[in-house]
Amino acid sequence: MYQVDLNSDLGEAYGLYTMGMDKEIIALISSANIGCGWHGGDPVVMDETVKECKGRSVAVGAHPGFPDLMGFGRRNMAVTPAEAKAYAKYQLGALWAFAKSHGVPVQHFKPHGALYNMAATDAKLAAALAQAVHEFDREIIFLGLANSCMITAALECGLAVASEVFADRAYNADGTLVARSQPGAVIHDTELCISRVIRMVKENKVQAITGEDVSLKPDSICVHGDNAKAVEFIKAIREAFSTHGIAVKNLKAM
Amino acid sequence: MYQVDLNSDLGEAYGLYTMGMDKEIIALISSANIGCGWHGGDPVVMDETVKECKGRSVAVGAHPGFPDLMGFGRRNMAVTPAEAKAYAKYQLGALWAFAKSHGVPVQHFKPHGALYNMAATDAKLAAALAQAVHEFDREIIFLGLANSCMITAALECGLAVASEVFADRAYNADGTLVARSQPGAVIHDTELCISRVIRMVKENKVQAITGEDVSLKPDSICVHGDNAKAVEFIKAIREAFSTHGIAVKNLKAM
Amino acid sequence: MYQVDLNSDLGEAYGLYTMGMDKEIIALISSANIGCGWHGGDPVVMDETVKECKGRSVAVGAHPGFPDLMGFGRRNMAVTPAEAKAYAKYQLGALWAFAKSHGVPVQHFKPHGALYNMAATDAKLAAALAQAVHEFDREIIFLGLANSCMITAALECGLAVASEVFADRAYNADGTLVARSQPGAVIHDTELCISRVIRMVKENKVQAITGEDVSLKPDSICVHGDNAKAVEFIKAIREAFSTHGIAVKNLKAM
Amino acid sequence: MYQVDLNSDLGEAYGLYTMGMDKEIIALISSANIGCGWHGGDPVVMDETVKECKGRSVAVGAHPGFPDLMGFGRRNMAVTPAEAKAYAKYQLGALWAFAKSHGVPVQHFKPHGALYNMAATDAKLAAALAQAVHEFDREIIFLGLANSCMITAALECGLAVASEVFADRAYNADGTLVARSQPGAVIHDTELCISRVIRMVKENKVQAITGEDVSLKPDSICVHGDNAKAVEFIKAIREAFSTHGIAVKNLKAM
Repeated sequence: MYQVDLNSDLGEAYGLYTMGMDKEIIALISSANIGCGWHGGDPVVMDETVKECKGRSVAVGAHPGFPDLMGFGRRNMAVTPAEAKAYAKYQLGALWAFAKSHGVPVQHFKPHGALYNMAATDAKLAAALAQAVHEFDREIIFLGLANSCMITAALECGLAVASEVFADRAYNADGTLVARSQPGAVIHDTELCISRVIRMVKENKVQAITGEDVSLKPDSICVHGDNAKAVEFIKAIREAFSTHGIAVKNLKAM
Repeated sequence: MYQVDLNSDLGEAYGLYTMGMDKEIIALISSANIGCGWHGGDPVVMDETVKECKGRSVAVGAHPGFPDLMGFGRRNMAVTPAEAKAYAKYQLGALWAFAKSHGVPVQHFKPHGALYNMAATDAKLAAALAQAVHEFDREIIFLGLANSCMITAALECGLAVASEVFADRAYNADGTLVARSQPGAVIHDTELCISRVIRMVKENKVQAITGEDVSLKPDSICVHGDNAKAVEFIKAIREAFSTHGIAVKNLKAM
Repeated sequence: MYQVDLNSDLGEAYGLYTMGMDKEIIALISSANIGCGWHGGDPVVMDETVKECKGRSVAVGAHPGFPDLMGFGRRNMAVTPAEAKAYAKYQLGALWAFAKSHGVPVQHFKPHGALYNMAATDAKLAAALAQAVHEFDREIIFLGLANSCMITAALECGLAVASEVFADRAYNADGTLVARSQPGAVIHDTELCISRVIRMVKENKVQAITGEDVSLKPDSICVHGDNAKAVEFIKAIREAFSTHGIAVKNLKAM
Repeated sequence: MYQVDLNSDLGEAYGLYTMGMDKEIIALISSANIGCGWHGGDPVVMDETVKECKGRSVAVGAHPGFPDLMGFGRRNMAVTPAEAKAYAKYQLGALWAFAKSHGVPVQHFKPHGALYNMAATDAKLAAALAQAVHEFDREIIFLGLANSCMITAALECGLAVASEVFADRAYNADGTLVARSQPGAVIHDTELCISRVIRMVKENKVQAITGEDVSLKPDSICVHGDNAKAVEFIKAIREAFSTHGIAVKNLKAM
């Protein structure tokens, strides 16, 4: 029996500002990355999102970002590793408060946006984030980009890790993502996306943009919940999983 | 043997901005109320302050405030009880992250500034804050204004409470503080301040501004660390305590 | 020939967060109150909104609010008049930058949300806001609640004023709004709303909630652009205006 | 008769947080770069700083920074040129409000911290900032690093420019600053600093770190006001200027 986690970024509304189709998405995923108030999310939203996840038996994780609400945490910021470590702990603790209050564990930790992208290639930053998690609670799983230095850093810390893959992104021959600036970086053919994901899960392989097969063991697939089309895509993935005997389970359950 | 706690607001620096004489104060108190990043404090400061407190065996507490850095959390804001509850949890969790990482407990919770003042007279707000603490961790002591509805609300929740008194403030006959807008609200005579505190600790009484004695059982005395004179005042209190056989102990130790 | 201004709050999106149906609204109003980045709006949004207004010949105004993005500026804050004055100037200047760059004047100033509501009944706060405008540029019109102390304060400063009325709100016999907490404060019958507005414009009268007629001279009617239904309501008002010979003109044109 | 401007960063306090020795510095300089609330400064501080500058006949300038109060605007942020342009206008307009209210012009515009450093080497960013100023008011002088692309970009826009030099920094043979990461980048010998500045002003030359002379025409010298020692350094510069017949004049007066 094959199994894989489906994760999505949630809880990123802020005050009166809405973001994403959280309720629809929570019904379809196994792990939720919940905004912690810096790039998105606020305490009331965090509380409601944890509650909603609990009601749907979706595992919750901290999704900390840069202190850049105006840029939704998507702009690189030259923070030091020490700053990043403290920022990660702060946001992780904030989510912990709501999870603990609702009696659910914080299953995982996944950096957001520019913090994620920077930590995927900056070993010192990745180590700082991994240490933040490890010093706080070593039971928390570090969810990071497959084959990136986030995974290496978390393993070196002694954390359990989960490798994230993307259904709609092209891969290089070394297992890294093709940069968005390159042609062909994003795959728009839904059927192709789904068949690639299924092959990743069942064969642990994906065809690189240069043609050869790359080994890639996916623990979790990142899906988006921005609009109705994205929700349809998740439903299509789940249907294909069902056909191919792939169970959707959260990270702790695997 | 008499005993009492000395608490002070600390960890309220922000980025490059300094605030207060934290190192000098930490050497003189038993419990630290640490800013949680909203009215003051940032993650790096919080981490350093917890570390410093641990090194001096000073108990740490969360000191959450309104989302008003520009006003240092001293301006009333019309937040709903539900918002206040979520804000308190968020900030409490953030401090928890640093305390847990350093292996020290969060001993207490004390609201800051306008949130403290409003909760002292608004029973619904006080209840919301007490519930935030209780839902998160019922081992945390609620430190609030003696004889205020914060104490009542925390007791009703089932929390342990600690009553805070002020050395330099006048009291009404009903045990509440004389409002700062009233003449005589603040006592400027250092000797008088100290003798009043000692009587509060030893006799559980203080003379009200209207002349009669008021019953008042102080668990903790709030001291300030804004400047060198404030530090001298704390030293003078400690010296007087020593003479009168009053031990300074944190809230958990009492 | 009758004439009146139609104003609406716009430009309140923030970063990736959207707010309101600005484009649809701008096509239907004569004056836009543009968020200045504190309760909503950001510099990129402000620039685009001014540009859009210019393209539609809609007059632009500054719409400053409290420093409370999380509460969308709708929560009372106990700022001093001196603080409010500086906050108003700061935000007015920020909008001025975009208006001046696009070669359009800042026609008016209208406080937002809680700042508006507080200034409607707090004469000192109203005076501080009026002085902010007057010291900056005395050509700017102060748009405030009809019969409130904002109007009085602005007149005392020597500013031109515009009285704002609401189509869907009940009025007391003294010309003030019935508080939202009171039954009947909001009128849900669209036809009734429209007929009341038309009577206000043509006869300068409105029936108070207690039955008697109140004198009320409306310079501008506040309309909302939150959703499709709101947009339909504005269209219905404009249609009725057309039938009754009421021209929609901005404040400077009247 | 030689002449040069002395500029310093001021008005960077925030709420209760103090920063720098503004009053002492204002008495010694000719042009003030005033924080605009994003990296430092708040509306009340801005108003007071403009007032203080006016009283001392010191010219005021806008000193906009990244939206990063926690990092004091000193951390690189990957904003787009369009964002930077809007951010610059917003902050410039905000300062304009206080300057206009006090009846003084905004003499110049100087980016702060990381925005300054990035614009010194990023031509697109520099162009965006220059366009922001030019579109808003073409009478404002762009104050930027001598020999950097900020100067080029501003000239191309049609703005008047002022070249800034540093008394305590080493220069490369091409007239750029030696990076702080390089040995010898900062000159600690006060006498040497002063003699270098005087030679720059009188001979338009400075010895590069590699030994040869570089041509460098300084319009303004940046001085700091962080502490008492810094204030003494400015006094020493002014004394040496007096001895060498160098007049201190603001940028408009030259």
